[in-house]
Amino acid sequence: MTEESDYPDEREQKPESEIDQQSVAKSIVEHEDEIRTALEEMDAEPPEDKEVGLQLPKLDLGRRQFMAAGSLGLAGATTGCLDRLDGDNGQTRRGVAEADVPPGEHDDYYAFLSGGHSGEVRVYGIPSMRQLMRIPVFNTEAARGYGYDEETREMLEDSGGYTWGDTHHPRLSQTDNDYDGRFAYINDKANGRMARIDLEYFETDAIVDIPNTQGVHGACAQLPDTELIFGVGEFRVPIPNDGRDLDDPDEYGSVCTAIDPETMNVEWQVEVDGNLDNGDGSKDGRWFFSTGYNDEGGVNEAEMTRDDRQHTKAFDIPAIWDAIEDGEYEMINGVRVLDGTQDSPLNQGDRPIVRYVPTPKNPHGVSVTPDNKYAISSGKLDPTTTIIDIEALGEVDDPADAIVGQPNLGIGPLHTAYDGRGHAYTTLFVDSQVVKWDIEAAVEAYPEDGDGDSPAVIEKIDVHYNPGHLIASESYTADPEGDWLLSLNKLSQDRFLPVGPVHPENDQLIYIGDDEEGMQLVKDTPAYPEPHDASIVSADKLNPTQVYDREDQPDKEYISSDDNEIIRDGDEVHIKMHNQRNHFGFEDITVQEGDTVTITTTNVESTPDILHSLAIPNYDINLKIAPQETREVTFEATEPGVHWFYCAYFCSALHLEMRSRLLVEPAD
Amino acid sequence: MTEESDYPDEREQKPESEIDQQSVAKSIVEHEDEIRTALEEMDAEPPEDKEVGLQLPKLDLGRRQFMAAGSLGLAGATTGCLDRLDGDNGQTRRGVAEADVPPGEHDDYYAFLSGGHSGEVRVYGIPSMRQLMRIPVFNTEAARGYGYDEETREMLEDSGGYTWGDTHHPRLSQTDNDYDGRFAYINDKANGRMARIDLEYFETDAIVDIPNTQGVHGACAQLPDTELIFGVGEFRVPIPNDGRDLDDPDEYGSVCTAIDPETMNVEWQVEVDGNLDNGDGSKDGRWFFSTGYNDEGGVNEAEMTRDDRQHTKAFDIPAIWDAIEDGEYEMINGVRVLDGTQDSPLNQGDRPIVRYVPTPKNPHGVSVTPDNKYAISSGKLDPTTTIIDIEALGEVDDPADAIVGQPNLGIGPLHTAYDGRGHAYTTLFVDSQVVKWDIEAAVEAYPEDGDGDSPAVIEKIDVHYNPGHLIASESYTADPEGDWLLSLNKLSQDRFLPVGPVHPENDQLIYIGDDEEGMQLVKDTPAYPEPHDASIVSADKLNPTQVYDREDQPDKEYISSDDNEIIRDGDEVHIKMHNQRNHFGFEDITVQEGDTVTITTTNVESTPDILHSLAIPNYDINLKIAPQETREVTFEATEPGVHWFYCAYFCSALHLEMRSRLLVEPAD
Repeated sequence: MTEESDYPDEREQKPESEIDQQSVAKSIVEHEDEIRTALEEMDAEPPEDKEVGLQLPKLDLGRRQFMAAGSLGLAGATTGCLDRLDGDNGQTRRGVAEADVPPGEHDDYYAFLSGGHSGEVRVYGIPSMRQLMRIPVFNTEAARGYGYDEETREMLEDSGGYTWGDTHHPRLSQTDNDYDGRFAYINDKANGRMARIDLEYFETDAIVDIPNTQGVHGACAQLPDTELIFGVGEFRVPIPNDGRDLDDPDEYGSVCTAIDPETMNVEWQVEVDGNLDNGDGSKDGRWFFSTGYNDEGGVNEAEMTRDDRQHTKAFDIPAIWDAIEDGEYEMINGVRVLDGTQDSPLNQGDRPIVRYVPTPKNPHGVSVTPDNKYAISSGKLDPTTTIIDIEALGEVDDPADAIVGQPNLGIGPLHTAYDGRGHAYTTLFVDSQVVKWDIEAAVEAYPEDGDGDSPAVIEKIDVHYNPGHLIASESYTADPEGDWLLSLNKLSQDRFLPVGPVHPENDQLIYIGDDEEGMQLVKDTPAYPEPHDASIVSADKLNPTQVYDREDQPDKEYISSDDNEIIRDGDEVHIKMHNQRNHFGFEDITVQEGDTVTITTTNVESTPDILHSLAIPNYDINLKIAPQETREVTFEATEPGVHWFYCAYFCSALHLEMRSRLLVEPAD
Repeated sequence: MTEESDYPDEREQKPESEIDQQSVAKSIVEHEDEIRTALEEMDAEPPEDKEVGLQLPKLDLGRRQFMAAGSLGLAGATTGCLDRLDGDNGQTRRGVAEADVPPGEHDDYYAFLSGGHSGEVRVYGIPSMRQLMRIPVFNTEAARGYGYDEETREMLEDSGGYTWGDTHHPRLSQTDNDYDGRFAYINDKANGRMARIDLEYFETDAIVDIPNTQGVHGACAQLPDTELIFGVGEFRVPIPNDGRDLDDPDEYGSVCTAIDPETMNVEWQVEVDGNLDNGDGSKDGRWFFSTGYNDEGGVNEAEMTRDDRQHTKAFDIPAIWDAIEDGEYEMINGVRVLDGTQDSPLNQGDRPIVRYVPTPKNPHGVSVTPDNKYAISSGKLDPTTTIIDIEALGEVDDPADAIVGQPNLGIGPLHTAYDGRGHAYTTLFVDSQVVKWDIEAAVEAYPEDGDGDSPAVIEKIDVHYNPGHLIASESYTADPEGDWLLSLNKLSQDRFLPVGPVHPENDQLIYIGDDEEGMQLVKDTPAYPEPHDASIVSADKLNPTQVYDREDQPDKEYISSDDNEIIRDGDEVHIKMHNQRNHFGFEDITVQEGDTVTITTTNVESTPDILHSLAIPNYDINLKIAPQETREVTFEATEPGVHWFYCAYFCSALHLEMRSRLLVEPAD
């Protein structure tokens, strides 16, 4: 028997006629000079106005084209580059006309996207939407040798030994509220972990398994200088969760965890009422905000959606440190845990460690405006977002009094991003739209903004379909670029060629750089399940390396061709060998069945992009070895026979010949 | 100490000025009507020739633009659609002007690309180059639950228990030398396996672990009706490889394996001299061709590159079956193995089972022309390809006499694709180019075609950098479409934003649909390591399903909401429950520590794109459950405590609330 919920399934696909109109303007702008030449050669009378940049509006292609051509053409008139915009840091940026990055050219931005239950993080270029790289985090992945060498194996083993995770919220380290290019942090919602990615190497370099929590959902930082990383524990469970209070939900709790971003050690946890969800830090270091639902303490859907109002939690970070200083915590599983529930003594008096701001209904996303004036929390099951005045929050007796706006935006508001020009962009999950609205207009209208769409609403654009997160370029900093918006849509339905029951999601690129033209849908991008959130950073703020620095591998022995050596100690064999085009340090290695074999190998090349791997078939091993990198693996020689180990990175014309023999002599 | 080989590292980046010129023509063609309107509004004299399609050449933008505009404009004159081309099956195809597929529109082709040592297969749309889906094959992957439920776990365990593989050559099943949309087949070069992907579900449905071989490199089929699948064993090892003859390379051998495409059982193997490499079948069912190197029988690079001539092997399939009929095989590890080495009795007389066609040097790729006249084998370490006349091969006494062409093409020829118009396209790895050449011209010039580039060479285009495989649309069929070519380049160097030491590869899209305009580079696409080969199939030849058919899951019990049940038998607990928006069949399930728990769960929805998952944190489990699909998992309840299992596919506004409790009571 087939059953279905009554959730709306069919969503109308809106005509894309707007796009067609835009592309006309785009192509004309893009090739103005060539078109002029063509016109002249057709003996057309040249237009009277000789000023190139002002000429195009005369084509009178209608208001929308006029605006696009005009705004871009004017920029071109002074720079000689018709379709590049100058960012406020003086960097040249591609405009909507150049969203298709030509062969050989670079993108303006990196986008870091979570990979959901794939366990990985993905890197896109913006605006091309090309996937530049995948970074395995909680999953194992052979092409990068992740989970196959001793170092990464141990990191995964020491953080629980799981083979997957559920990544949602990639956030990048900041200094002075701007991206510093050092690290990305990412949560594991499944197993309660947080990981760090080194942005010099684009590799996961630390994972912490967080006690006293099941799943870490939100992940963000204390700003302006990434003083702490926060892991927002979602599921309510007994603390500790060792078999006690199994069916006594009143005893369950959820915690927000603070982690030192350098050591990745857990600093402290604060237990709260209800389930925590997403989070964001204020830009002055004072507050960490988290949405939450299920303040009802329910254990099923009906109970968890009973009430019309839950809370946005505001963690007062200095007050928490002071409470710790005063010893106001309990050590549980080695962690200082503070009681931040509403009835806790720590929340009485004039300096509560957590302020509970009432928010309708099952609020989902919260983010802080670039100017640090507001935290904006979205209702999910209510058509409003709630605007919290951050300065007022520290002054009012009743946190509800810090609410300064609550605009009606549409059905299913989930997450909000910013362009730095006073606009907010909120995803409407059920309406399958992104709504652009004016933050101060919403504050001015409050509380008399009526039942329909708020007067603060500027524009809505259809997305396809059911958007979760959205993110604007550098939206999480104090100074967003305000040109590109990514809408990460959960369903793609029929937007792409069918690929079986597992559909890709649809990451849509929207240009928001022109307030008069309005939001312009530029690209549909199919995404492997499943991106939840992203951070977009200007390309010039990252400085990745391409060759390993030996200083960054202090625990590893560099093996040059002079160092090739086989050391035997009983049934332990240590093989040290270099690798380079087109061979390994040894042509053959003989061991006995039952030996414990360790191979340490260094790629001695210093040419970027010349990687090798050490693939050992039948032993389920594949190491990635980048230029100047050393990796090590240990295994038991259980399989007698001839095993050719080879390089799986196509490295030269003689790549196929790059291999050696592991000869395992039978024990008998 | 840093050491480097003397292999050339620095490759000049060629100017992209050609592309800029092309895009001019593109945009003018794309928007002819709009430009006409604009011209008229500028009071330009309308051109004398009123015929739209013939008007554009008058713009006289130079030869290249002239040709592009002319050829596309003419098509547009009759169809009203300026930038779509009609394929010879009447299907409308995008031309070079429409390579950027707008939001909401579909691609014309699927491309199936191998993922190398990632172990997966990837699906792109052509010409957008968007990645539509990833299909895990030899790797485990949580977002698709692959390797996490009993069925896929068992499939991986029964084929060796490895967690990765090295996929190279995805080939699609054909009927009457055309794609039939049923299956894709893919090799594992690391562990000697072959897998099959069901193209109705885009899921791996069978893996066979092949005895008597270490790695399977090439993978192809007997045509015209995919009667057999061939796995081309590359590494020479003892047969069987059980510890005997460890350091006696003269006793090593490599085999070509024939597999039944329906049962995926091994039918027979033929042992040959030298290492096998890539392969392709003739279109009449008679031959299977494989390149090979190391006829020297060497075990290091110097030995394996000693001679200037090895062989392309032509397996005579009917002759092999007749030899089997005559009992001319040995059973080794349960497989019928025939001796196909040069000195074998089976290769003497007038009906040898394998013909050895001498080919210079370490030949790498071999492919059969669409008209089945020739097999073309590329020299890799020699600047020539060798053209073998397929009809002659069955008639000549000396296989060398079947060689009818040997054009000089450039340095490092690897693989050859076809457009169906008599042209061949060959990658030049060292030159970083694709060369287009005329097959019959090469045959005519033989053997007097001189030392420089063959007179058959038409054109060369720079690619970036070091191409391995290339593939044209439907090149492996009898009737290629001849519009798009993918060059799968091993190095990207500086073509994309830097992402650390692991560079993406660069899959470049080249338009080949206009012989007068020549090859046009259209897109650079970063690729996760590492695609080796691809097949491109017209979108209308696949018919994937979006909802599971219960008939296709005969071994699985469909669990509706009426069937929810917990069955206890000692310490074994079987939970049957459905799942749908926004809940699982049980709100909580209580088991004892130490219980063996089996969960069978059905997604009872029938709406496409509404997937659920069963994520069981702390137990390292995540099942994907598509609409109408049933999956099952068994695990030991080793962890006491409250474990919320949840849906990891964002499925509705109440997705976050879709979860239940697994309560594991402590054993004491």
